[in-house]
Amino acid sequence: MPKLVMKFGGTSVADIECIKNAAIKVQEEVSKGFEVIVIVSAMSGETNRLVSLVNEASKMHDAREYDAVVSSGENITAGLMAVALQNVGVSARSWQGWQVPLMTNSTHGSARILEIPIENLEEKFSQGMRVAVIAGFQGVTDEKRLSTLGRGGSDTTAVAFAAAFNAVRCDIYTDVDGIYTTDPRITDKARKLSKISYEEMLELASLGAKVLQTRSVELAMRYKVRLQVLSSFSDNPGTVVCDEEEIMENNIVSGVAYSRDEAKMTLVSVADRPGIAASIFGTLAEKGVNVDMIVQNISDDGRTDMTFSCPVGQVALAEKSLNDAKNMKTFNYHDLIADTEVCKISVVGIGMRSHAGVAAKMFNALSSENINIKVITTSEIKISVLVDRKYMELAIQSLHDVFELEAKT
Amino acid sequence: MPKLVMKFGGTSVADIECIKNAAIKVQEEVSKGFEVIVIVSAMSGETNRLVSLVNEASKMHDAREYDAVVSSGENITAGLMAVALQNVGVSARSWQGWQVPLMTNSTHGSARILEIPIENLEEKFSQGMRVAVIAGFQGVTDEKRLSTLGRGGSDTTAVAFAAAFNAVRCDIYTDVDGIYTTDPRITDKARKLSKISYEEMLELASLGAKVLQTRSVELAMRYKVRLQVLSSFSDNPGTVVCDEEEIMENNIVSGVAYSRDEAKMTLVSVADRPGIAASIFGTLAEKGVNVDMIVQNISDDGRTDMTFSCPVGQVALAEKSLNDAKNMKTFNYHDLIADTEVCKISVVGIGMRSHAGVAAKMFNALSSENINIKVITTSEIKISVLVDRKYMELAIQSLHDVFELEAKT
Repeated sequence: MPKLVMKFGGTSVADIECIKNAAIKVQEEVSKGFEVIVIVSAMSGETNRLVSLVNEASKMHDAREYDAVVSSGENITAGLMAVALQNVGVSARSWQGWQVPLMTNSTHGSARILEIPIENLEEKFSQGMRVAVIAGFQGVTDEKRLSTLGRGGSDTTAVAFAAAFNAVRCDIYTDVDGIYTTDPRITDKARKLSKISYEEMLELASLGAKVLQTRSVELAMRYKVRLQVLSSFSDNPGTVVCDEEEIMENNIVSGVAYSRDEAKMTLVSVADRPGIAASIFGTLAEKGVNVDMIVQNISDDGRTDMTFSCPVGQVALAEKSLNDAKNMKTFNYHDLIADTEVCKISVVGIGMRSHAGVAAKMFNALSSENINIKVITTSEIKISVLVDRKYMELAIQSLHDVFELEAKT
Repeated sequence: MPKLVMKFGGTSVADIECIKNAAIKVQEEVSKGFEVIVIVSAMSGETNRLVSLVNEASKMHDAREYDAVVSSGENITAGLMAVALQNVGVSARSWQGWQVPLMTNSTHGSARILEIPIENLEEKFSQGMRVAVIAGFQGVTDEKRLSTLGRGGSDTTAVAFAAAFNAVRCDIYTDVDGIYTTDPRITDKARKLSKISYEEMLELASLGAKVLQTRSVELAMRYKVRLQVLSSFSDNPGTVVCDEEEIMENNIVSGVAYSRDEAKMTLVSVADRPGIAASIFGTLAEKGVNVDMIVQNISDDGRTDMTFSCPVGQVALAEKSLNDAKNMKTFNYHDLIADTEVCKISVVGIGMRSHAGVAAKMFNALSSENINIKVITTSEIKISVLVDRKYMELAIQSLHDVFELEAKT
């Protein structure tokens, strides 16, 4: 029988009512003739509760014990989902990560999947089991210690199972009903996409769209797993993430993404010598500052200005790290200016590869609204800018219009 | 190094403060030179929460899935305890049942322990681990499914580990500081026993003393495991449960136990023929009525009265079962009388074996208080009576006095 993977996130299994509702969706797919692998997250709020307990026990905790505690949330949901499925007459059983066994490396807290042997599940499928319910987010190391895949790891679990079992599709059930051209809370012209390419989804995920975890999209792209993002609270079709060849509509730009809480930091008058960037950003990386965009101004007198962006919440950490390095004479600078009132706006689209002028069109649109661009970075299928946060909604609405993303009637 | 087993019940690990407090107690034993095996229960209330979730998902649930869900509570505590121990500088790690592996049979929900291989833990002890924290109440079947040992199963886990590792003692930390001659809430003359024999503890446990699970005492008796019951909230010594040979004080009676909510039921005028008792009590057992004491009156005209006791909460079930059987003509009786206002009082002591007259002394004491005895049963080291519930406290106080159980000054 063909295999289908269905993944239910925390809000889709928030309580027993939600779990029963999800079980009905699984039952429908079983009745269409699928053998289904269901991946479940912890009930919403549960993982946070467990993380707090571990932190309360000790700020400096053993990552292996953290994993042993935090993985419990998914185990509970997996058992409950199996019971709910049996309750509607579907032959189902739960599997914890170690029972599969889903093998990972030993990087506890953010482990990588090494292997998913299919024999144990296939044996049960061949004996009449129609649904295997898998506790997401977790695995086991070759030392038989429990591991977790990091936040959002259940998406990755789902894609990995779809790849291992050669599933026809991997449906990711969540609390939104698909991928939109932009956030519908910012403009009601936002349109749900019926399809989007892996590459675009990858950019959107790393730009802050919280629907799918970046790693899961990378994995889906590598193994050509057809993903579908859809809501567990409606019967509407969702958005399919697939190869770009499959996509007919093919806009030049597919979506406008944003990240609200960015800060721009400028190191004024840094010695412009080889290795200076490595030294500065090495220091920041070591201290855990998540640097995103980097711009270096043209130098004329042997000194230069270095600008970068990072999350607002890390500004104090960045300032301390740079000051400490200055005091240690690791490098020198004249001044450090932090602008904590900026946001990042990005346009994403595989069409950019073959269409020139997307950047010009974007800059013109912002300029005609009198929005000043502070930093620019580009990739093959993405252009990001930093602008003042007060212009965020205006910038998004204007770009959504100029790239004609609104609902086609 | 000598091994010590320390078990912490739900109230002893109720929150992070309690867990840290328990970790200090473990640290003290480590500093005395012990290698310690810590058995933990779920945080108090957690198992009830999980059981409710499973029941909400389906009244008729797969016992294997029930076990997968309900065993999570202990996994959480085990990881937290390991973190708390590391936090005070003790080399510790957590072990879930399947990691040991603690092997059980497949009677899910009330599984029996088959084997505890010691190799995995011993290997880690030999590498410098000083504490193994074990999730209590759970194990794994040879099909690699999770199993639980039934309510209170963490006591049994503790005793089984003490037996397997030949521990010098098995300390059961709870919210009371030992075994008392009777309930201190009923008489302030109640005295904490420094020692009690396995046999007496077994009688007390099955008579409703909630301090230790009956199965754990049976297991301790079979493998000669020295148990100590003590409070995690004080530093007082507790009560040691051991071989009777060790006990010097050796009262004839060690304690007075009681069970408040008993009912006495009498079947009036039953045909007195062979097999009638088997038929009546077979019917009740089949319906799940927990029959305790049974008395059959002398028969003179080919008919007899049959009296038994059961918990008050099961009276309706017992009445329905017996009525149904009467209607089916399985057996016949004239009338069914339920007295729901009785309680059971028991005196327990290994001294009874060699001392005659204990029963007479007990009946005299009750008679001198004008307390009427309704039913009597005896075992080698126990005498139990049913009396009106309104006399319960009076009966206990009077027996406590007459057998000279009060605190010696």
